[in-house]
Amino acid sequence: MNGAESLVKSLINNGVDICFSNPGTSEMHFVAALDHVPGMRSVLALFEGVATGAADGYYRMSGKPACTLLHLGPGLANGLANLHNAKKAGSGVVNIVGEHAASHLALDAPLTSDIEGIARPMSHWVHGSVSATDVGADGARAVQAACVAPGQIATLILPSDTAWNEGGEVAEQIKTPPRAAFNEALLEQATKDFGGPETLLLLGGNALTEQNLQIAGRIAAKTGCSLLSEWANARLERGAGRVKIGRVPYPIDQALETLAPYSKIVLIGARAPIGFFAYPNKPAILTRDGAKIVELADTSQDLTEALTALCGTLGATETPPAHVAEPHASPLPKGPTSAESIAEVLARTIPENAIVVDESVTTGRAFFPATAGAPAHTWLNNCGGSIGYGMPVAIGAALACPDRKVLALVGDGSAMYTVQSIWTMAREQLDVTILIFANHSYQILRGELTNVGVQNPGPRAIDMLSLNRPNLNWVEMAHSMGAQATRVDDCGDLAQAIETALETPGPYLIEVAV
Amino acid sequence: MNGAESLVKSLINNGVDICFSNPGTSEMHFVAALDHVPGMRSVLALFEGVATGAADGYYRMSGKPACTLLHLGPGLANGLANLHNAKKAGSGVVNIVGEHAASHLALDAPLTSDIEGIARPMSHWVHGSVSATDVGADGARAVQAACVAPGQIATLILPSDTAWNEGGEVAEQIKTPPRAAFNEALLEQATKDFGGPETLLLLGGNALTEQNLQIAGRIAAKTGCSLLSEWANARLERGAGRVKIGRVPYPIDQALETLAPYSKIVLIGARAPIGFFAYPNKPAILTRDGAKIVELADTSQDLTEALTALCGTLGATETPPAHVAEPHASPLPKGPTSAESIAEVLARTIPENAIVVDESVTTGRAFFPATAGAPAHTWLNNCGGSIGYGMPVAIGAALACPDRKVLALVGDGSAMYTVQSIWTMAREQLDVTILIFANHSYQILRGELTNVGVQNPGPRAIDMLSLNRPNLNWVEMAHSMGAQATRVDDCGDLAQAIETALETPGPYLIEVAV
Repeated sequence: MNGAESLVKSLINNGVDICFSNPGTSEMHFVAALDHVPGMRSVLALFEGVATGAADGYYRMSGKPACTLLHLGPGLANGLANLHNAKKAGSGVVNIVGEHAASHLALDAPLTSDIEGIARPMSHWVHGSVSATDVGADGARAVQAACVAPGQIATLILPSDTAWNEGGEVAEQIKTPPRAAFNEALLEQATKDFGGPETLLLLGGNALTEQNLQIAGRIAAKTGCSLLSEWANARLERGAGRVKIGRVPYPIDQALETLAPYSKIVLIGARAPIGFFAYPNKPAILTRDGAKIVELADTSQDLTEALTALCGTLGATETPPAHVAEPHASPLPKGPTSAESIAEVLARTIPENAIVVDESVTTGRAFFPATAGAPAHTWLNNCGGSIGYGMPVAIGAALACPDRKVLALVGDGSAMYTVQSIWTMAREQLDVTILIFANHSYQILRGELTNVGVQNPGPRAIDMLSLNRPNLNWVEMAHSMGAQATRVDDCGDLAQAIETALETPGPYLIEVAV
Repeated sequence: MNGAESLVKSLINNGVDICFSNPGTSEMHFVAALDHVPGMRSVLALFEGVATGAADGYYRMSGKPACTLLHLGPGLANGLANLHNAKKAGSGVVNIVGEHAASHLALDAPLTSDIEGIARPMSHWVHGSVSATDVGADGARAVQAACVAPGQIATLILPSDTAWNEGGEVAEQIKTPPRAAFNEALLEQATKDFGGPETLLLLGGNALTEQNLQIAGRIAAKTGCSLLSEWANARLERGAGRVKIGRVPYPIDQALETLAPYSKIVLIGARAPIGFFAYPNKPAILTRDGAKIVELADTSQDLTEALTALCGTLGATETPPAHVAEPHASPLPKGPTSAESIAEVLARTIPENAIVVDESVTTGRAFFPATAGAPAHTWLNNCGGSIGYGMPVAIGAALACPDRKVLALVGDGSAMYTVQSIWTMAREQLDVTILIFANHSYQILRGELTNVGVQNPGPRAIDMLSLNRPNLNWVEMAHSMGAQATRVDDCGDLAQAIETALETPGPYLIEVAV
């Protein structure tokens, strides 16, 4: 058995059964092994950022790492931005990066680069295999590293000779260590003076499951504390009948205002709130001066245990939860599509059990509150802030959950970074409804110009934030990659288009005028 | 004056007058400075790999570095693959990468990453500015680093506070050191037994200018040596009336056969030939055992001086050059487009003084020899092997040479990596004719499967090399980004389409069936 076959078998033994691929010459034996070894689905991406983003989405929805197959240093480099997002989301990913045979490296061939150096900034674990005999065990260790809670980026560099040489040995499953216990020693400090309008319970990570939010709802009902999640959550369960939780706003002034009331904050799986960026003459720490912040557990720890203990200590175990979302009741809005009216349409059209991948940026700021009463669904945010995450993550989510509808809400600027995603959706006939919000600009940056103190930006500055001249035609873009598409600028048409898209097998793109 | 303004002025003082931009919040002051400071053209890209590739093309055709403006670590990461190509091509590029304000870095915000670590593998020079006062001088030093022969990648990390703080100081021009002298001590060794059918003069870098090739032609005429260039050349002048030079083939078996005759090889700006990849049971060093190889000058040295000295020592200064290309004379081929017939069409349609950016991969292997007698033109190859270089480099070439026609020859697989290029071409109304060779596969990898010893690849392996299911529609793709386009499958139609494209202002894409 050659090294490549032993690696594929070892990955499968360790629960990795899908590979998002963009291979080249140095990965040909791995590709060939996919033929000989049953049990690994292989999904082709036409750009590596699609592959790494898909692995992120797959982990968020399945809890299992996928692997990526990337061609040498530049292939890995193309995948880094979405690995950055996956890293910040706490997603586990196993990257298999081809490398020249050891004997070839010294020759400094055109594609030679410092792969380990490229991998390091976005990886928790990096290893270069040295022989076909080791590759199987290396693969198992990579999966183990990826599974460390909440999930890590593991990058295995696979020289082509270690793939093609004979002597491969298949590794059995390696157990991953359980999540660390929460900070029980801080429980007394956390519960002291807990409650009332100046107390905030700030949640993140898998504190945002349906069950954990229900515990949080009991605590809120018993103590009168507020509940919030971070601005960006890897995965949040919500919708009618579930405990509703807001997010700390992105715009700096709104975030400061939202957090101003709280003198006591308990963190469970969330980090202490800071600004996304620094702004001149504005604070970076968003909580008020002197606020007491207790971190009861971070995302690597057992958040269910932390919430349960907090709930028990506060005597809320039997209290019916507060903030349970009522079903959405507003009528379908009429008239042109706008940030506000689209939010109302979404609230009425998100189907039961949908997965919503949100990269709607400025257009979508009203979406989250408006959709709290939609049928029960899952909401995924961009945790690393590198745009181009939405459509790739939707691919991974759709493959992890083939029985669920996926809605990708994406700004036009964001969508362009990984626009090749549409082709993979079409090829795999993924049931994804893509809404592209076409404001023909990097609208978010227009606000940021003011926030960073630029007054009266001139035409050349505005030009760098404008995606008009020419406008993108998203219907033709989708058609060019084999997906169906339509364009709407009216709320009734949008609702109808979403219904059609949800009923149509495969991807369906809706360009929404805003 | 704030830091950003001093940086823009310092860059302009040092000859940088174009910026390929994909900015974010942390770069807003630089964007604002573009308004206040005249003299810097700013070109927006919707993906960072377009920006870095354009900077590569700009340098190749103007000899001056452009700057890129990239958003933090992930923005730089998206640009790395084409920086890799630029680095291998010896192109000078100045990257300006925004960073969080120093005070914000400690907070580990979502977009925080190790920018220096990301930059290092693809950069010759990396520096992080520490104050507004230093930024101007840092920018000048970055340009100086980029100008070190033949050209280098310089990356300047610009924390947002160093951009927005007052106290900026404008740097005057820093001189770049001249090219190093060639290895004159090796001249005797190089000229000893030089000549005849076993001698090869292997050229690269700026040994491939029209004048330098003429010197090489004199040497060949006088001594009977062969002339070759590397497989990938950053820039090569060719066409009717110029000295013709072949390239070492990419396919390993052809390369071995081509180089087998030579027992003596003199390198001027070229590296000793090695395989692009390692292949099992095939040599990595492509020259025959015991061949005497003398490196008279590498790309950083004075290649004109080296060629002139070699020519003089060999007594060829007055010899009329050999291998002068005759004008192409074959008639326009008829019938369906194929790799061979497309080559013949190109030979007849490349216009005088055109710039041909070649990323035609498998389809284009016949193009180079067939077009040797086309009207005088410039030919650019991908030197780093990371695909997705062609359309971005065409952007930079078109902006560097607004009076010249640019032809981008691109495989469909390659084109998808940086497909966003089409939009920038449309926005800037660049006179680029794009030929997309639609074989609906990573055809090169089908050959490589066999080369690396994979026999009878099965359907799942083949599927990972196939871009059908669905086929890409390049006409709709071009239209979606505001470019004109057509599709051809016949030689006469191709010739007509190229003529139309050359006459039409702005970009024009031709999907060519192969």
